[in-house]
Amino acid sequence: MPFELTKEYLEKIQAAISEHNNEFIRTEMEELFPADITNILYELEGEEAHYLVTLLDTKLAAEIIVNLDPDDRKKFLKNFTSQQIAEYVDLLDSDDAVDILNEQPVNVREEVIALVSDREQARFIIDLLHYDEDCAGGLMQKELVKINVKQSVTECVEEIRRQAEDVENVYSVYVVDDEGTLLGRASLKKIILAKRGSKIADIFTDDIVSVKTTATGEEVADIMQKYDLDAVPVVNIQGRLLGRITIDDVVDFITEQAHEDVQAMAGISEDVEEDDSVWKLVRSRLPWLLIGMTGSFLAAKIIGVFDGEVARTPALAAFIPLIGSTGGNVGIQSSALIVQSLADKSGIDTSLTERLKKVLLVSLLNGLIAATFAFLGTLVLEHENTISLVMSLSIFSIVMLASFMGTITPLVLNQFDINPAVASGPFITTTNDLLGYGVYFLIVYMLI
Amino acid sequence: MPFELTKEYLEKIQAAISEHNNEFIRTEMEELFPADITNILYELEGEEAHYLVTLLDTKLAAEIIVNLDPDDRKKFLKNFTSQQIAEYVDLLDSDDAVDILNEQPVNVREEVIALVSDREQARFIIDLLHYDEDCAGGLMQKELVKINVKQSVTECVEEIRRQAEDVENVYSVYVVDDEGTLLGRASLKKIILAKRGSKIADIFTDDIVSVKTTATGEEVADIMQKYDLDAVPVVNIQGRLLGRITIDDVVDFITEQAHEDVQAMAGISEDVEEDDSVWKLVRSRLPWLLIGMTGSFLAAKIIGVFDGEVARTPALAAFIPLIGSTGGNVGIQSSALIVQSLADKSGIDTSLTERLKKVLLVSLLNGLIAATFAFLGTLVLEHENTISLVMSLSIFSIVMLASFMGTITPLVLNQFDINPAVASGPFITTTNDLLGYGVYFLIVYMLI
Repeated sequence: MPFELTKEYLEKIQAAISEHNNEFIRTEMEELFPADITNILYELEGEEAHYLVTLLDTKLAAEIIVNLDPDDRKKFLKNFTSQQIAEYVDLLDSDDAVDILNEQPVNVREEVIALVSDREQARFIIDLLHYDEDCAGGLMQKELVKINVKQSVTECVEEIRRQAEDVENVYSVYVVDDEGTLLGRASLKKIILAKRGSKIADIFTDDIVSVKTTATGEEVADIMQKYDLDAVPVVNIQGRLLGRITIDDVVDFITEQAHEDVQAMAGISEDVEEDDSVWKLVRSRLPWLLIGMTGSFLAAKIIGVFDGEVARTPALAAFIPLIGSTGGNVGIQSSALIVQSLADKSGIDTSLTERLKKVLLVSLLNGLIAATFAFLGTLVLEHENTISLVMSLSIFSIVMLASFMGTITPLVLNQFDINPAVASGPFITTTNDLLGYGVYFLIVYMLI
Repeated sequence: MPFELTKEYLEKIQAAISEHNNEFIRTEMEELFPADITNILYELEGEEAHYLVTLLDTKLAAEIIVNLDPDDRKKFLKNFTSQQIAEYVDLLDSDDAVDILNEQPVNVREEVIALVSDREQARFIIDLLHYDEDCAGGLMQKELVKINVKQSVTECVEEIRRQAEDVENVYSVYVVDDEGTLLGRASLKKIILAKRGSKIADIFTDDIVSVKTTATGEEVADIMQKYDLDAVPVVNIQGRLLGRITIDDVVDFITEQAHEDVQAMAGISEDVEEDDSVWKLVRSRLPWLLIGMTGSFLAAKIIGVFDGEVARTPALAAFIPLIGSTGGNVGIQSSALIVQSLADKSGIDTSLTERLKKVLLVSLLNGLIAATFAFLGTLVLEHENTISLVMSLSIFSIVMLASFMGTITPLVLNQFDINPAVASGPFITTTNDLLGYGVYFLIVYMLI
């Protein structure tokens, strides 16, 4: 059963650290999975965490460090020498090693690479450092088992044995030709079940999905999800096999993306978590808070023009929230839907006119229902036909306008390679608020 | 390289269907992966899709059908007899078979099970139908390779051979005792590399993570992600091995959850997609649209009480949007953060008082900055000290109040097992709007 960290357990470990009860700590930690020890680190003070990790076997320590969040890891590794970091990096999968090195200042990075004792690993790292972090090249690891198509299954098993220590999870052996071009793969199951003396050429599958080094993280995630892959090989433009991406890294990527989208929608401008510093939390919220307020000052300016009307008919002021919140809600509903359908690129792309036609129909219906509701609600509150008419006309126009804006904004942002989820947040609300008040007082001006 | 569906290709296939050019269709489809053919189905008319699928080999057809979205699949299978569905179900992994059967009416479900010719598969299905769809029992499949701890590696390879056809992806062989209690696992890599004559007992790992049938989907996803697992065994309360959950199903689960959270935040009340029917889209948006409007009518009622003040000082009306949008933005920022930290249960649970203390600090700082900004902005617009004072006091109170509400609401919903993401949407905005206007006019009443 999975381990659950309790306050009591934590206190026991902290006591052992302060008493330098190394034997006890080692025995306890050996009982746990690396991911569990990582969670313990989060609860310890910097000094304690450092002490605990240096007590452990290097391989275990390396795995614990890999599991840390990038920000925490960067801070944590400040207490280690380049020599120590090199020892950890030596034992990690190349993609994880590169992630850690990318977080270090350039001089530390170079020192560490020079100190890595396994020269193949150092070469892998230098190779991978060329790629952008968020593309297939940046996500891949160099560790994989590959075999020439001319070889036999027996030779293949020998190759697996040779590489067994370096390659943690072997799902398949990749089959290449003399030039290193990817031809296909043979699953371990097939290799186990192959008859004695079989050739790789007889047992491998050639219909295989691969990705180019330049594919984006989203594309890799989509492909692995669509074809239910546990690993996908990465090739260069000539089709030469360079590495592979395993599903666990893609799961992390998917979760991170979802995280970012939610924060974009919530108007949080930095990737933060509840346990970040107060100042970081303040800073992440301020931009959209102040931008939203600036938008409202503009709204005040617009409404201010109609001071006279408001003084004569104060009821008009009472319905300002109805205008603002309806525009905001409709805009976010529309944009969220477009953002999701942009993210899910399975079928043929819906054309802009088709999209707008559908949005028009949906918002026409919603607009009519909302307008009727607005008419009745206003009538009940104010017993006044003209105001009710103004409100229902305004709500109808605003539902139409906000749907249109909510649809078009993410599409435009997407064209400019900006995360369209940004458009589902305060941005769309602020824009729609302003448009809404403009429309409202225009109708007021014409009818009253 | 992954297949990309073009309009031209689709038209070629549609033409072939209408001309009953079966040979051409079969050859073309054999070139594609099942997931690609599923995407083609989405673009075809019901009749065409049915025609295409019945042309294909049963195994391929079954895999295509599994890839369909549940709603589409339910509609699609209406054109098939129970006998045909039984033939597909026969060839699927038990978890996929159960998903399909769960979508069928009870009478069809029973007919299909009776018609499944592989009696082991029928037993698997009946077993799995007992579990709730969203718990580990409902996510698991019965197909796995298990071996008694007393057996040899050679016997194990024989067992893999025997089950090879039924179990698609073999990552590990699960090791059990005579009672079927899960003891550990042996990876295929270890089995390949084992010396001749080794016993399973010599090579298997006993530190293994498993989940109980009653674990929730979220718990399973968290565990597999935390420990980077490609498959997790499912056991009953006595520790007996019942099935396994593979990572591809969990990836689908994670994506679905993220989808649902975003829709909850956007105030969309049904799980919809852009290509759903107009009526479904209208229906999914109406509830929160109308609830939001009802909230605004309440706001109108509150503001209406201060008709006199508004008539005397119309500038007060101009700043209503500032009150509403600031409250809404702050509320969503706070709740989104709590929702994310509720979803990520790695460390020790943060206590309520600690949470509120931090929120208090963050909102105090944000409140002070926002209040200063409000004071200055109002001064620039109105050149009036009293109104500026009213605005800055109101904004300060609203930032504090909205942060508190945004923090407490998701925690309360979570206590009652309601998806806390609901609290990041129109619900929190509407509540904060109302509170905000109340506070605003209270301050107006006291100071003006």
